Amino acid sequence: MRRILFFAAVACLAVPAVAGDAHTAAALRDRALADSTAWNVLESLTTEIGPRPAGSPAAQRARDWALAKLRALGFANVHAEPFAKPSWGRGEEWAQVVRPYPQPLAVIGLGGSVSTPPRGIEADIVVLKSYAAVLAAPAHAFKGKIVVVNQPMKRTRDVSGYSAAVVARFGVSEAAKRGAVAYLVRSISTGNTREPHTGATDYAPNTPKIPAAALGVPDADLLERMAARGPVRLRLKLASFLRPTSTAWNVSGEIAGSARPDQVIVIGGHLDSWDPGTGAIDDGAGVAITTAAARLIGQLPRHPRRTIRVVLWGSEETGGSGSAYLTAHKGELAKIVAAAESDLGADRVYRLELPQDALRRRALKPQARLLAPLKVLVSRNAPKHAGSDVEGLQKAGVPVFALDQDASRYFDIHHSADDTLAVVDRAQLGQNVAAWAALLYLLADSDVDFRAKPAHKSVP
Amino acid sequence: MRRILFFAAVACLAVPAVAGDAHTAAALRDRALADSTAWNVLESLTTEIGPRPAGSPAAQRARDWALAKLRALGFANVHAEPFAKPSWGRGEEWAQVVRPYPQPLAVIGLGGSVSTPPRGIEADIVVLKSYAAVLAAPAHAFKGKIVVVNQPMKRTRDVSGYSAAVVARFGVSEAAKRGAVAYLVRSISTGNTREPHTGATDYAPNTPKIPAAALGVPDADLLERMAARGPVRLRLKLASFLRPTSTAWNVSGEIAGSARPDQVIVIGGHLDSWDPGTGAIDDGAGVAITTAAARLIGQLPRHPRRTIRVVLWGSEETGGSGSAYLTAHKGELAKIVAAAESDLGADRVYRLELPQDALRRRALKPQARLLAPLKVLVSRNAPKHAGSDVEGLQKAGVPVFALDQDASRYFDIHHSADDTLAVVDRAQLGQNVAAWAALLYLLADSDVDFRAKPAHKSVP
Repeated sequence: MRRILFFAAVACLAVPAVAGDAHTAAALRDRALADSTAWNVLESLTTEIGPRPAGSPAAQRARDWALAKLRALGFANVHAEPFAKPSWGRGEEWAQVVRPYPQPLAVIGLGGSVSTPPRGIEADIVVLKSYAAVLAAPAHAFKGKIVVVNQPMKRTRDVSGYSAAVVARFGVSEAAKRGAVAYLVRSISTGNTREPHTGATDYAPNTPKIPAAALGVPDADLLERMAARGPVRLRLKLASFLRPTSTAWNVSGEIAGSARPDQVIVIGGHLDSWDPGTGAIDDGAGVAITTAAARLIGQLPRHPRRTIRVVLWGSEETGGSGSAYLTAHKGELAKIVAAAESDLGADRVYRLELPQDALRRRALKPQARLLAPLKVLVSRNAPKHAGSDVEGLQKAGVPVFALDQDASRYFDIHHSADDTLAVVDRAQLGQNVAAWAALLYLLADSDVDFRAKPAHKSVP
Repeated sequence: MRRILFFAAVACLAVPAVAGDAHTAAALRDRALADSTAWNVLESLTTEIGPRPAGSPAAQRARDWALAKLRALGFANVHAEPFAKPSWGRGEEWAQVVRPYPQPLAVIGLGGSVSTPPRGIEADIVVLKSYAAVLAAPAHAFKGKIVVVNQPMKRTRDVSGYSAAVVARFGVSEAAKRGAVAYLVRSISTGNTREPHTGATDYAPNTPKIPAAALGVPDADLLERMAARGPVRLRLKLASFLRPTSTAWNVSGEIAGSARPDQVIVIGGHLDSWDPGTGAIDDGAGVAITTAAARLIGQLPRHPRRTIRVVLWGSEETGGSGSAYLTAHKGELAKIVAAAESDLGADRVYRLELPQDALRRRALKPQARLLAPLKVLVSRNAPKHAGSDVEGLQKAGVPVFALDQDASRYFDIHHSADDTLAVVDRAQLGQNVAAWAALLYLLADSDVDFRAKPAHKSVP
């Protein structure tokens, strides 16, 4: 029903106010579908760099890779912007059931977790079927126990399933407050493979810092089944280290605008990744999609009026790149006319969300017609979220847009060792590039001020 | 086309020579579809024991588990038959690209592999796209190199894809003969997850024993892509140990025949498993399916005429249980009227293969009608293979039958950490039990001698 409404909206909006531009954009879109740049960029990043957590030696290699790649693809003003990024690294990790049913478990430390003692920690477990049950537990409820939260994640096309589930990954201090000695969370995943899914956690102030890790999905269910039979004793070893003075880099390059080069559209993906996989869908894909889309535009005989700036963010997973950018570009914010990030894998775009006011402006209506052949609908709503790295820009008043991707499959893989080039669907990757290239061209070749207040209040 | 022929055959064969039996068998089949025994057995084995390689301490616990489970389910003559089983165990294992693109690789030692030196082995790699290319290489072709065989496996419903691919897992000596210092084979898998798939390998006599391991599917492709860019140097560590005097056990229990208890039908699955997963589909499923089917028959007010013996084999993965059984039961072979094994996971049965002569015997024709509602077709051919553990019996002249399972998904998971209860489809598991229960009842309640030569030569 909602889909049909959108399609109707698309048809009504399709009044090409800037017909020449729409033509170029359509040609770009079709060229993008057959273009191999995104695949080549993604293949290169996963093959030549692989995992690249912010602050690691691999992240420095990724920076150099990005500088060289953007230059080779014809970007202007290619440079890296360093910022201080204290970082966390992983050491030896394992877990095993000691009794009554000794067997090994698949486990991965959460980013930011403290280490266990060198020989591990041993304790009985308490299994909770939801994170709400942790919050509902009284003081001392988990005294001396390893808390296991086995809350399944719902598969959804948008990120709502993830948003609902991921709070459990940040629950370590709630367990610690109630006396827990370690915290194990079911991987925030819709899959059933055994690779555990990592991700950041954090500690509340004035609460004991206890070790925190994610269990493989089957392992969390296994512990729940064991615990249903009686007491279960577990041994857990986590080792990690901190690099208090490490550096990260936002790498950027531009397709200079032909008429208003001072007006900038910021797009990109993040260059850092978690360590177990090769960072193909999170977020090599975003790097590849936005780089390829901008590059295709850069190859046009006439660049669009405004500048397109690709920023390859240096620390999304553990935060920092967005705020560093905000600080470094404070004086330029008024000139950033729009921003967006591609950070939900390589599966197809199904929806465009524009800054609220944009929909009311005739000059931008061709995008609906342009994106319809890609099966991308135009939402009536502005995006709530357009990527973690542009959140700072968004809060500072920069209008954001989003090309929402189908996330149904994304969280089977996200933050796990399974995040490799093998899971990327090349046709869907191309559809992303096509949507980005066509839309970006229109936005960049327009004069619309997305910050301007609309003449009337009602949504068309 | 072939399917239609089989359906036609089914219809023609459906002459209920033993109408009462067919009625009981149909009721059994329908009861089995709703019965939870197989699931409960599988849940129990994976939860309470987990991985259980032959010769390991866990295998001894699995033996005790099996004895207790068969007794609890009402089997008679429950006992364990020990046999000597020198065994192999896994230690620390890792691999990493040293240059030019340093990153870790997912790797698992092949069963039987020798260790590398304690600090690992470092060498350049040579990547071959097929195992045939290894065989075609001249002497000294791999001198000082780590050989990487990146031969993909074809997804097929039967085991033909596996049979064609698995030869590469046994290729270590062919590489060693040509000067290789280590052997890495792409996991024999149809999946794209990163967990590598282990399995046995072996060494030819008078050839240097070099370390051998499987790479995750994405890792094998990664190395191929790296090697396409230039020389690649890799470091590999494998540690393993041998238990020269360990013991394994075939555990068996019986549903005693009501008229000819001395005539025995041997069925079962194997109790041992590889170590990375919990042995759910390989072969907890076979254990569960055959145990549940026999138990349902055991609950009938009148047992079928012949004895049904469930044998839970103690060493399928690295061999030994079948030949031990043959030796221990040499004097009884003539009384074993038929044998079969369930060892291809928990996905549905699509075909029945009976001993060649059985199809010509009116008394057995009801099985076609019985199995049709389960979408199981009756093949005109006798099975070539009815399970590794009954191969010895088969060679010694015992007639074998097979309920062939759909293996399309099986090799995504087989021999990897992903082999857990999470991947088991409960409805398909139930369909297996229904097919086994109905068929077994007919075979056990019949007087047909499957060894007898047919009256005429042509297949009907």
